[in-house]
Amino acid sequence: MASRQIPKVLARKVVAQSRLLKIEAVDLRFSNGEQRQFERMQGSGRGAVMVVPFIDADTMILVREYAAGLHEYQLGFPKGLIDPGETPEEAAQRELKEEIGYGCHTLTRLTEVTMAPQFFQAKMTLFVAEQLYPEELPGDEPEPLEKVTWKLDDVDALLEQPDFSEARSLTALLLMLRNKGR
Amino acid sequence: MASRQIPKVLARKVVAQSRLLKIEAVDLRFSNGEQRQFERMQGSGRGAVMVVPFIDADTMILVREYAAGLHEYQLGFPKGLIDPGETPEEAAQRELKEEIGYGCHTLTRLTEVTMAPQFFQAKMTLFVAEQLYPEELPGDEPEPLEKVTWKLDDVDALLEQPDFSEARSLTALLLMLRNKGR
Repeated sequence: MASRQIPKVLARKVVAQSRLLKIEAVDLRFSNGEQRQFERMQGSGRGAVMVVPFIDADTMILVREYAAGLHEYQLGFPKGLIDPGETPEEAAQRELKEEIGYGCHTLTRLTEVTMAPQFFQAKMTLFVAEQLYPEELPGDEPEPLEKVTWKLDDVDALLEQPDFSEARSLTALLLMLRNKGR
Repeated sequence: MASRQIPKVLARKVVAQSRLLKIEAVDLRFSNGEQRQFERMQGSGRGAVMVVPFIDADTMILVREYAAGLHEYQLGFPKGLIDPGETPEEAAQRELKEEIGYGCHTLTRLTEVTMAPQFFQAKMTLFVAEQLYPEELPGDEPEPLEKVTWKLDDVDALLEQPDFSEARSLTALLLMLRNKGR
C-alpha cells in the first residue's frame, strides 16, 4: 500500500452539473506541502457489474450496443449499474435477464476494477456466468441489443476485433481466459 | 461490425462545463424510430498512452500515484495524454522519461482501448517498453511518483493487489502476459 500520507482536502465545490453528471473541483494539499486543484466526477456511488456469460462450455454471448461517447456500435459483455438495495450478484443476474434473456445457476466473481480513478470513483465487479437458463426481463434500452455468440477457440479473433475495445470487457475476457488456463 | 444503421444525431448542446471538462447532451433517433437524449463527455480528442516498462527481462516498473476520483493512492503503469503534434510512440517515450526516468530502445504496441464508450470518446494506446536507458524529463506531478518494481514471477500477487485496479492497467498487464505465453 502507499507509503505516503493521503493529500488533505482543503475545499470541495460542484463546478458544473447536468441532468445526470456532476463535476467537482477539489483543492488538495499534498504531504510535501504542494497545493493543487483537481477536477473529478461525482459519481452515484452505486457501482456496476459486467458478466461474461457462457451458453455452453465453449461459447460466450456478447452484446453489440450503441455507444454515444464514440458514436459507434461497440461489442462487449452485458453490464449495468447496481440498483439500490441490490447485491452485485443480484445486479448481475438482472442484467443478464434484461440484456440477453438468461439467468444463470453459477456466477463466479473475477475481480473488481476501477476506471480512470484520477477522475472517477466508479467501481465495477466482473463475473463469469455459467449454466444459463432462459428468463427474460424488460430492459430500458432504446432498441433491443444485438446478441453475438463467440467460440472460445476463436478468442484471438475477438481480441483483434476493432469494436471490442472497452478496457473492462478486455479485462474480464483476459482474466477469465487466464483462470481457465486458455 | 454492426448490422444496424448508426443513430441519427438530431441535436447537440453543451449542458455543463468546468475548467477542464465539458458535458454534452445529444438528441438521438435510433433506426427503429425511438428517440432518446444521451449525455456524454466532450473530450479533447488527444488520446492517451500507457506503457508496461521492463527494467530487465523479469522485472516491470510500476508507479503509485494519487487518484483524486477515488481519493486513494493507486498502483499502475506510466501513462499520460498525447501532446499536440506527438505520435503515440513519442508520447510513450516522453511519459516514461517524466514518470520513471527512462527512455526505451524497444517499444511494442499491444492494442488500443476505450473506456466507458457510452460516455467517453477517449482512446488509449497500450505499449510494452524494453531495453530501457536512463533519461529524465521533468513532469508536472505535484509530488514525485513512487516507483515500484515487480517481478514477472510474482504477477499473480499483483493481480490480487487491491490498489492495482484500473481496467486499462489490467488489460495492459494481461495482454503482455498472454503475448509472452506467461
